[in-house]
Amino acid sequence: MSENSALQDVFAHIDAQRDSFLSRLIDYVRHPSISAHNIGIAEVAGMLVEMLTKLGFDTRLIPTKGHPMVVGRWLEAKGAPTVLLYGHYDVQPPDPLDLWISPPFEPTIRDGRVYARGVADNKGQHLAQILAIESLLKIRGRLPCNVIFLLEGEEEVGSPHIADFIRENRDLLKADLAVTADGPLPPSGKPTLKLGSRGVLSFELRVKHASRDVHSGNFGGVVPNPIWTLVHLLGTMKNDRGEITIDGFHDGVAESTAAEREAAARLPLDLDEVKRSLGLSRLDAPLDREYFERLCFRPTLTINGLHGGYGGPGSKTVLPNEAFAKCDARLVGKQDTADILDKIKAHVRKHAPEVEVVSSGPGMQPSRTPITSKNVAPIRRALFAAQGVEALVYPAGFGSLPGYAFTDILGIDHFVTPYGNADEANHSPNENLKIDCYFNGIRTGAALLDELGRAGRG
Amino acid sequence: MSENSALQDVFAHIDAQRDSFLSRLIDYVRHPSISAHNIGIAEVAGMLVEMLTKLGFDTRLIPTKGHPMVVGRWLEAKGAPTVLLYGHYDVQPPDPLDLWISPPFEPTIRDGRVYARGVADNKGQHLAQILAIESLLKIRGRLPCNVIFLLEGEEEVGSPHIADFIRENRDLLKADLAVTADGPLPPSGKPTLKLGSRGVLSFELRVKHASRDVHSGNFGGVVPNPIWTLVHLLGTMKNDRGEITIDGFHDGVAESTAAEREAAARLPLDLDEVKRSLGLSRLDAPLDREYFERLCFRPTLTINGLHGGYGGPGSKTVLPNEAFAKCDARLVGKQDTADILDKIKAHVRKHAPEVEVVSSGPGMQPSRTPITSKNVAPIRRALFAAQGVEALVYPAGFGSLPGYAFTDILGIDHFVTPYGNADEANHSPNENLKIDCYFNGIRTGAALLDELGRAGRG
Repeated sequence: MSENSALQDVFAHIDAQRDSFLSRLIDYVRHPSISAHNIGIAEVAGMLVEMLTKLGFDTRLIPTKGHPMVVGRWLEAKGAPTVLLYGHYDVQPPDPLDLWISPPFEPTIRDGRVYARGVADNKGQHLAQILAIESLLKIRGRLPCNVIFLLEGEEEVGSPHIADFIRENRDLLKADLAVTADGPLPPSGKPTLKLGSRGVLSFELRVKHASRDVHSGNFGGVVPNPIWTLVHLLGTMKNDRGEITIDGFHDGVAESTAAEREAAARLPLDLDEVKRSLGLSRLDAPLDREYFERLCFRPTLTINGLHGGYGGPGSKTVLPNEAFAKCDARLVGKQDTADILDKIKAHVRKHAPEVEVVSSGPGMQPSRTPITSKNVAPIRRALFAAQGVEALVYPAGFGSLPGYAFTDILGIDHFVTPYGNADEANHSPNENLKIDCYFNGIRTGAALLDELGRAGRG
Repeated sequence: MSENSALQDVFAHIDAQRDSFLSRLIDYVRHPSISAHNIGIAEVAGMLVEMLTKLGFDTRLIPTKGHPMVVGRWLEAKGAPTVLLYGHYDVQPPDPLDLWISPPFEPTIRDGRVYARGVADNKGQHLAQILAIESLLKIRGRLPCNVIFLLEGEEEVGSPHIADFIRENRDLLKADLAVTADGPLPPSGKPTLKLGSRGVLSFELRVKHASRDVHSGNFGGVVPNPIWTLVHLLGTMKNDRGEITIDGFHDGVAESTAAEREAAARLPLDLDEVKRSLGLSRLDAPLDREYFERLCFRPTLTINGLHGGYGGPGSKTVLPNEAFAKCDARLVGKQDTADILDKIKAHVRKHAPEVEVVSSGPGMQPSRTPITSKNVAPIRRALFAAQGVEALVYPAGFGSLPGYAFTDILGIDHFVTPYGNADEANHSPNENLKIDCYFNGIRTGAALLDELGRAGRG
């Protein structure tokens, strides 16, 4: 890794602003911005417009069919690359409220962490990027590369309009690469770089036979049972060896490259600890693939929930009349959400035409950034410069982010550098961000622009 | 059918007592006797002891490990057969209370029916037998055959002590046949005779993998899913052709006899009406067996309920950590509940040893009375004499009653002659008994003893 002593003045400034930057985080997350309930969205978007404008960014609040996008551009680094920084200013609903130790919108510091809804996902992470830029501008008077901020207000409801928005605003968003600071670090807390992410498609299987529940004695043997229908249908979709058996499902699953597999193999893994921490006696089938290979390169078919019939105490001799299974598929490579949904529908039509397939929205496409991208090296250098530890490089993130909007629509590489602690409890009560992680994020944001600027200028 | 004009005086008495017998039904069902909650059991058992004693029955209240049995004997018909009349004085809990049009323990007459919890299941049906006996004694001064009443207080909680009780009281209960008036008539309302009943065994399959729910992206592919585990296990227990595939499950399933199949084939069946009334587009597999053959002679494996993971609105990308399936098996022939439970446990140990099999109690053995029994003819004559319509003869009832205690322990034939209307709503809100059904029951009770007495004397 390069020595980057040139950043010491910026890091010193960040250290000197510790109290002020912490106050500003607390002020920012005090304002709810719950996209699912349309609470506080306009106010928080307005705060961002004001912050970016103050920094000299050409900033716009652009409407979509849902909540607006905040776009701020600083393009004065002639000849340097342009980095698009993506984040989202909306947060999850805070329910269940009674499980919060301190109220979700009254940010509270305990044990070196700030507790508040959205503090890690994602407000604290993009605020860290904004304060990194403020610090660079303060010390240097200018930024080492061009920056476009894109801050979305609908990530927590599935980013339904980002693809159209990016298609319609290509010119405004013209950049050389995109970087997202979102999500938790691995349990080791080591700086982390993720290339691409799995896509996701959610759907529901619903079946109703009789118009009402019937007695299992009086009708057992002649009235069909919707749970058996789902059991037999699901059994045709994935076998007990963990292989998804829907026709054509694997068509777009590209083989991973040798370099990607090597990167996956280099990731630290303590399987006993994984099993211990989750109380598991075994991992899922198929066991013939490595742990990270499965998480990075393979699709899944998960039953999120299955419900039908009696679920109370004791027994009830009922033959139920309806049941449903909620499922999601994680997608990789060139698998396409709409195409996979069509294949699932065709499979169900063939094996159990009585079962209705209901899509739960458009889902999110997978995205993939080559591990050979020239930007991998400067981003790794930035992570080392800011945190003093070699970064872990994941050939793909396991979860789903709208990275495909950058890789597939803008045609640029997309990188994810999470700043949150592993136990940030995003989407859960007592969401929190370690203060150290927050400041590592601010330092990383500064180092990132510095390294990308140097690399871009050769 | 024989003309039985000798009963006209008894029937005339019953008609004359219409108001009084209806009042006595209302008085009887006004008293709750909820076995599951131990409410009113002692009081109602006491009422029965008083009623039977007044009729000259040698009556005892005999304790069990649960609620007591009422046993009343009248054995003065020397040389005549002895019939054991079984019923149960306990009722189902009335919940949900808010769905009752009139309160469950304030009996109300509407549209020719008495509405009250327990009025049909089973208080109105054994009270009809008691009033039949009262009428015979009033008009004739004696009964045409010997009668032993056995009235249980735990039928609605699965009759857990009846087998032991009967084993320990063989001498007290020595009889030539047993008759139960319980359950609803078929929709046509025709008088009905059922020979034997299917047994039932309830059990639960439970599986827990991780110690908590996890994110389907972060862990999908490496953390096992309990719903998939149940889906694949259940798929090995019954295939999509409706065949139960547990090793040895069918061992005790005797072939039905030609006479039984003929009786089943004679039962009226309007498949279109069955499907229409239940809103069904098809019957359950296997379709290569006749409707009543399946219900009378074949075992079942029903999933009463399956629950795991997310069941709320929309989607949630969760990988759940636990799931359960509640199941029941209806048994026939010589299938034995304990043996079947062992076979299910062995099957699960072999196919999914992580899954726990939890029995929901001892279940109920199947019972079978040969259609060639010499008592079939007099019972059919009695049903005709009382109701003027030829009885439907079911080679077996589809549901489960403790008839095995009579057929398998006492070694006598057991017959079921339901008196309730098809829509009696037993176990449901607004349970009711048509007043006409009640009086048909009283007449049938009288005719039954008369015909059995004649047949027994040759």
